[in-house]
Parts: sequence; structure tokens; C-alpha cells
Amino acid sequence: MKLYDSKMAPNPRRTRIFLAEKGISMPTEEVDIAAKQHKTPEYSAINPFQRMPALVLDDGTVITESVAICRYVEALRPEPALFGIGAKEVGLVEMWNRRAEINFFANVAAVFRHLHPAMKDLEVPQVPAYAEASRPRVFWFLELIDKELATREFVAGNRFSIADITTYVAVDFMKPGRLVMPDHLSNVKRWHAAVAARPSARA
Amino acid sequence: MKLYDSKMAPNPRRTRIFLAEKGISMPTEEVDIAAKQHKTPEYSAINPFQRMPALVLDDGTVITESVAICRYVEALRPEPALFGIGAKEVGLVEMWNRRAEINFFANVAAVFRHLHPAMKDLEVPQVPAYAEASRPRVFWFLELIDKELATREFVAGNRFSIADITTYVAVDFMKPGRLVMPDHLSNVKRWHAAVAARPSARA
Repeated sequence: MKLYDSKMAPNPRRTRIFLAEKGISMPTEEVDIAAKQHKTPEYSAINPFQRMPALVLDDGTVITESVAICRYVEALRPEPALFGIGAKEVGLVEMWNRRAEINFFANVAAVFRHLHPAMKDLEVPQVPAYAEASRPRVFWFLELIDKELATREFVAGNRFSIADITTYVAVDFMKPGRLVMPDHLSNVKRWHAAVAARPSARA
Repeated sequence: MKLYDSKMAPNPRRTRIFLAEKGISMPTEEVDIAAKQHKTPEYSAINPFQRMPALVLDDGTVITESVAICRYVEALRPEPALFGIGAKEVGLVEMWNRRAEINFFANVAAVFRHLHPAMKDLEVPQVPAYAEASRPRVFWFLELIDKELATREFVAGNRFSIADITTYVAVDFMKPGRLVMPDHLSNVKRWHAAVAARPSARA
């Protein structure tokens, strides 16, 4: 197995944190986004979508999409469960992971990709009006999740899950997007500090 | 259990097709998008994200997000498996479902939501430039999946899966977005006809 990774991008970080929570390490190759290495014919042959991460299995099968790699790993090594245990928790973890992706992470990414000068050659065309439409949605979600986190320890319940990983990586991705966490969101801050203190957060 | 549904929107259709493939029926309430019933305080109390579907369990737990409801159902009734069997297939189904969502369905939706006059009061603000940026990505994905479907029966392999449901619903969602399937994509057309012929496609 070999993992194509990028330390610059948020999605590969999701997979690294997931692997660290599982206690798994594997051979890794860094793909240099700044040098547009992910746009080369060599990397495109591995992943035509030109994104990281990509996991190449020993039989040559390629699994891309950070969460798909996580699901593959969960199926091989179920403990600790990061996608929930039992039908109801499985449903709620998937719900919160998707809510965090669609309503938060995607909006943070839109602000960064469609406004940041460094993305000019990578997000073509940049549509600044789309970034501005996405910006208030970031804060709408943060207000909502702050109220939720007043009632429980983690994003999807009282067990750490992939939904925490997604939300945590997206919060940290606010910084390059020049989005500032509102001071009054004390539950989000308590939760973020707790996740940041886990050894996996350094992955 | 009760399912809040919408016959007008593509995501609830994913859940309906999934349930039909499982042979499950349940009490359903239609939420009228044209009348903005999903924006009412009553529905917002069920799903603050104001989207359908939403599944209310007998204990009052609410599961939203079409794929989260599908995962809940898969955990309760594993056969026929629609998220793959075994680690590798599980990873590949998740990969193709996400590729279809992120690189195809989301772009079809962007064209519809940011251009169609009927969406003026629901997608605020509409950003036509974002629709135009999304349009060529729809066709890029279709070219790619056409080549993939030359090598196998279904989107993620030789077994029907959630990835077929997502791709099929997104193809049908091209019509309201005024996106026309290119004539030369014969593998996509063969696959679409096969999925359309399944009884679940009428759900």
C-alpha cells in the first residue's frame, strides 16, 4: 500500500488524522501542489481528478477521496469505530459528517478557492461573488454547531468520529481563507481545544 | 418511522430509489417546496437545514441527508448490499459515490440553482458566473464515466450500488438544468437505460 498525500491541502489531513486514530502508518509520497505535481500526466494516471489523497493497494487498485480511504481502513480495522456503532449511530455520524462537509467545509473552501490570490491558477475561473455568497453560510453553521456542542461532547454524539475530523479540519482551514472564529462560540472553542489536544491532530 | 419527502427535489429521490431496492416502504409526508413549506418553523424544527429528506425514528431521533438515511437502512437491512461487500468494494463504492456527488451532481445542481428563474427566491444570491464555471465540469465527468462504463456494468463495479443511484439521479437532474446529454456517450446511455428499467427507478 502507498498513500499519495499533501501537507498543504485539508482533505489529505482528514485521512492522516483518521489513520493516526486507528494507529496505522503506511508508506507515503508527498505530492507538491505548489509545483502543480498533481496536474502532471504521472499523477493524473493515478487519480484523473488530480486530487489528494490517493491510496494504491498492493493489487494496483486505486482508492481516492479522503472519506473513501477512511471507510476502506474502517472495514479492515474496525476499532476504534469512527463511523459509528449500530444503525442509529451510523446514520447520525454520516448525517453530521455530511452536514459538516456540505454546509461548512465546502463553504470555507469556496471562500478560500474563489478569493485567495494563491488559488488564481488552480481555481479557474475564480468567482469572487460565489465566495461572498458562501461566507455567511460558514458562520451560520458555526452558530448551529455551537448550540449542538452545548448538549454533547462531540459533533455527532458522545463518541469521537469522522464528523469531528471533518469539522476540525474545516475550522483550521478557515485561517488560509481569512475567516475568523467568532469569540462567543464557547462550545466550539471547548470542542476544538479537546480535538487539538489529541495526538492525532498533529498528523 | 416517518419519512419527510419531496417529489420535486433530486436528493429525496436517491433515498426513495434506495428504499425500493431494499424492498422497504414507510409512512411518508410530502413537503411542498413550491409553497416553501421546507422554510416554515414547523419543518425547520425537524431539519434546521431546511432540506429533504428527513427520517424521524420512533424514539424521535431525526436523521437527515439522503445518504445518511440510506446508511441507516443498510445497517438495519444489509441485503441487497448497496454500499459494497468487503473492504475494497466498500472503498470503491464510497469513492465513486463521492466522485459522482462532488464532480457531477454538485455541478449539475450549481447550473440549475444559479441560473434557473424558478430558483431565484430559493438560491439567494444566484451567481450565474458560478453556474457557467460549473457547466463544463458536468461534461468532463460524463466523458470520464463513459470510458469507465466501457469496462464494467455499473458505476463502481459489476454490482449495482449507491453510486449508480447518485449518478442516475444526477443525470435526470440535467433536464431541469437544461443540460443535454451528448449523443456520443454510448456507454452512459446503455447504463442509464439499464438503471431506468429497474422497478426502483419509478420510486
